[in-house]
Amino acid sequence: MKSHTIHLTMNVPARMDFVNITDRVAQAVAESGVREGLCLVNAMHITASVYINDAEDGLLHDYDVWLEKLAPHEPTSQYRHNRTGEDNADAHMKRQLMGREVVVAITKGKLDLGPWEQIFYGEFDGRRRKRVLVKIIGE
Amino acid sequence: MKSHTIHLTMNVPARMDFVNITDRVAQAVAESGVREGLCLVNAMHITASVYINDAEDGLLHDYDVWLEKLAPHEPTSQYRHNRTGEDNADAHMKRQLMGREVVVAITKGKLDLGPWEQIFYGEFDGRRRKRVLVKIIGE
Amino acid sequence: MKSHTIHLTMNVPARMDFVNITDRVAQAVAESGVREGLCLVNAMHITASVYINDAEDGLLHDYDVWLEKLAPHEPTSQYRHNRTGEDNADAHMKRQLMGREVVVAITKGKLDLGPWEQIFYGEFDGRRRKRVLVKIIGE
Repeated sequence: MKSHTIHLTMNVPARMDFVNITDRVAQAVAESGVREGLCLVNAMHITASVYINDAEDGLLHDYDVWLEKLAPHEPTSQYRHNRTGEDNADAHMKRQLMGREVVVAITKGKLDLGPWEQIFYGEFDGRRRKRVLVKIIGE
Repeated sequence: MKSHTIHLTMNVPARMDFVNITDRVAQAVAESGVREGLCLVNAMHITASVYINDAEDGLLHDYDVWLEKLAPHEPTSQYRHNRTGEDNADAHMKRQLMGREVVVAITKGKLDLGPWEQIFYGEFDGRRRKRVLVKIIGE
Repeated sequence: MKSHTIHLTMNVPARMDFVNITDRVAQAVAESGVREGLCLVNAMHITASVYINDAEDGLLHDYDVWLEKLAPHEPTSQYRHNRTGEDNADAHMKRQLMGREVVVAITKGKLDLGPWEQIFYGEFDGRRRKRVLVKIIGE
């Protein structure tokens, strides 16, 4: 069994934004030499997500509006977590809605993605350096 | 390490519906010859889900109502994604709520599921052919 | 390829609560002898979750309030599932919001977690014995 581990560094200037990381994950798969296996991609921070969906600007805007409706940032005083001096309790909810991780099949040496599947990093409390873990196992 | 990859074809006649695929996944595990390992099952389309929950008709109805409340289809004009000519922005949200994939343990040659765990395909923009990927690795 | 399977027994006295299981999962990884691989941790019951987020009491309170808002327990008559004699339909929704499972990388013999990542069991229909599956594969 082969394994390969890399970390991607993310540095999103906005509080909330979405970054397409498909090419960076595909490159890690190529480097790994794995032909058949699994590729785990996860946020290492608890106010960020890795998810798979469409690379379409209108949808990214819609996610922004929708997540704000289901887990509003304001008023920050509504969350007990924010009494610790943070203002990011909503980001801990948004991350649960979008998920921490994806596991993608590797088949014949490539990410086995459907035609519209793109791997995204979702940032919900940005303006700081964060990391994404890519772990590949297989043969 | 062994690996086994199959695709299930789904063709759901309604816009939204839920299909129990547990038996089809179990059959893939049997075919794989894997005794100890992991089984990834994921939607290959971004307006569909694979999730694990109860095979109970009342609950499937409740999911329908609940998903429509949290991510309503109408009015379709509320979503910028729909300006592309689509009317399925809500399906991209519903799929995030229910998830893209499940990873199930394989123990002693079988899916290691709890007593009520059933693997479901959740369709949120049906009336077309879609695929589910089953990837098994182990020994 | 090595594999290791254990079950954790959970017995949460409240209907809804969150239990930090990071140490128990880390111990299973140590027992497995796996240096590079993947660790799946999943609820075996469909009204419970395994998720990764912050071990901060204020946030756990906020999750409680937030989940109750998005998938209220009362009135129990709003859910068709509850006509079966259950009163836990909301728990089947809360579990979808928080997720069934996490997959964590194992690197150099340890769970490869970010600085604040803690593995939690989320119970949404407690006061009974339930199980969590930990499946480790790798080398």
